[in-house]
Formats: sequence, structure tokens, C-alpha cells
Amino acid sequence: MRWEEIGNVPCSVARSLAIIGDRWTLLIIRDCFYGTSRFDAFHKHIGMTRHLLSDRLNKLVEAGILVQEAYQQNPVRYDYFLTEMGRDLYPVLITLAGWGDRWLSGDQGAPVEYVHSCGEATTPVVVCETCGEPLTHETVMPRRGPGFPEATKPAHYATYIHQLDTEITHE
Amino acid sequence: MRWEEIGNVPCSVARSLAIIGDRWTLLIIRDCFYGTSRFDAFHKHIGMTRHLLSDRLNKLVEAGILVQEAYQQNPVRYDYFLTEMGRDLYPVLITLAGWGDRWLSGDQGAPVEYVHSCGEATTPVVVCETCGEPLTHETVMPRRGPGFPEATKPAHYATYIHQLDTEITHE
Repeated sequence: MRWEEIGNVPCSVARSLAIIGDRWTLLIIRDCFYGTSRFDAFHKHIGMTRHLLSDRLNKLVEAGILVQEAYQQNPVRYDYFLTEMGRDLYPVLITLAGWGDRWLSGDQGAPVEYVHSCGEATTPVVVCETCGEPLTHETVMPRRGPGFPEATKPAHYATYIHQLDTEITHE
Repeated sequence: MRWEEIGNVPCSVARSLAIIGDRWTLLIIRDCFYGTSRFDAFHKHIGMTRHLLSDRLNKLVEAGILVQEAYQQNPVRYDYFLTEMGRDLYPVLITLAGWGDRWLSGDQGAPVEYVHSCGEATTPVVVCETCGEPLTHETVMPRRGPGFPEATKPAHYATYIHQLDTEITHE
């Protein structure tokens, strides 16, 4: 399977990664949350090439994650702002930061702390909206949802479907 | 900046992405949570080339996210299992799935539902470990942490440090 087809797989992880799984893309979105909105500022902070940055910004606009607003004409220049869909990626970023804080900080401690409005440097925890308990791979079971395609089942989904339909084994 | 240097930036998002930000890598980890452990099974489910898969599995072992255990000699063949560091990526994956469910499912609904032990198809929510309230970009402020490097401040961190030291603007 080529990467471009990943978005067609009936799995929201794969579909999400097809859009934001590019290595630079989440860094751009992180910068948006820091208040960055202009091309030169993204370029300065992230340090990726202008060509790549331009391509990724356009893809994020196409995907509906960013919206562009001209702040200058002749030549036209844009601010890039997160849409509601884009702002909804905050939980993904803060969870990723929490993992890095725990596992990649070495002896020095976290490079950046995230201070919550409750006053504490926060540790993000992912919980169930219904019961409020933490979600772990031991307590969550995947099953086919309403949007799982019944009609077409390409051969390479066969095992995946089998996994969904049988009890998942965790070591 | 080249991608290989991203892990040196004093930001846990960047450091995490340096390890798992490759587009295929989180799909491999997703498969591990489904109970997949062998090369041919990963290859069949994910559909990436054998060369890429081999490279990514080795990198995940080097990073401490997977551990390999030989299940056969002559030729030697390995099972790949998630370590504690790897299992701790579950919150990242389930949060990513939740975002995809909300924004990429179209009219059909989610392709896969995640049933929590409370009995409900769960929606993941990221909350503060201390107060239990949801974490949003409006209620969380980044600041320098204990592991932020004081000594060396390469020029391209200047603006990032400025962002951390001033009030972050959100539109």
C-alpha cells in the first residue's frame, strides 16, 4: 500500500495520520498554538525548508485544519490560523508532550512545563468521557463501528477485520 | 534545520516526533496494541514495503519502544512487543483516533468504536491529572521547565524562548 492510500483504510488512526502524520506537520500546528501565524515566523521557528513549509501549509488549508487570511496585497501575504478542526488537535499535542516529558527528558526534567488554569504544572491524562476513568489498552476493546465499510473488503483488510471481530490479545 | 536535529530542540513535542513522527511508525504501534508481533503480520496489515518496515522496527527497538524476542533460530525470527515506554503511547493513539472519528468519518460514523470497560463506546478526553478538568489551549500556558537548556541557546531558538517568556497570544 502506498502512503496516499492510508486515508482510505477504515481506521481513524490511519486516517488522521494520512493528514497530520507527516513529520513536520505537527510542529507547524504546535507553532500555531504558540500564536505563530506567518510564513517567515514558521520558517524561523521550525527551520524546515521554505519549499516544504509552503507545501505543508497548503495541505493543512486544504484539509480544513488551517484557514488563510490575507494581511497584505501586492504581493499577497497570508496569516494562517487554526480552524475549530485544527484547535481540536490540542489534546493530541499535549498528550504527545506528556509522553516526551516522561520518557525523553533524561535527568534534567521537562524542557517546558504546561501550567493549567488550576495553578499546577499539568500532567495530561486521557479519560473516558462517560465514566471519567483513564483509558488504557487493557480496558478498551475495538469493535466495528457504523462507518466500517461492509461492501468492499480489500484483501489487505482481512486480518485487521479478523482482529476487530475476535478478542484482542494483549501480552 | 534537518529532521535529525529536531530531537535536540528543548520541546517534548519535537522530541517525541523525532522518534514516532515518521508516518508509518504510529501504524506499527497501533498494530502492536492489536496484538500483532511478527514481521509478516505487520507487513500484511500495514502494507508498507519490507525494507521500510524492517528499518522502522529496528528504530523502535533502538528507541526502547519495542523489544524483540527470538521465537525461532536458523534463521532467527523475532516477536516484537511493546515495552512500558511503548504501551505508554496508548493515550496518543486513542486521542488521535478520537480526532479522526470526529473530523474524518463523514456521514457514516466512526469506522471503529472503542468500547471502554464501563460498557460505553468511549470518547477520549484529555484532562489535568491534578484537577480533572479538560486541558485546552485556552487554559494551559507553557513556561520554561527545569530541563530547558540555559547555557546554549542557538539562534533559531530565540523566538521560541521569547514565546515561552511572554504571554502566548491565542486568536
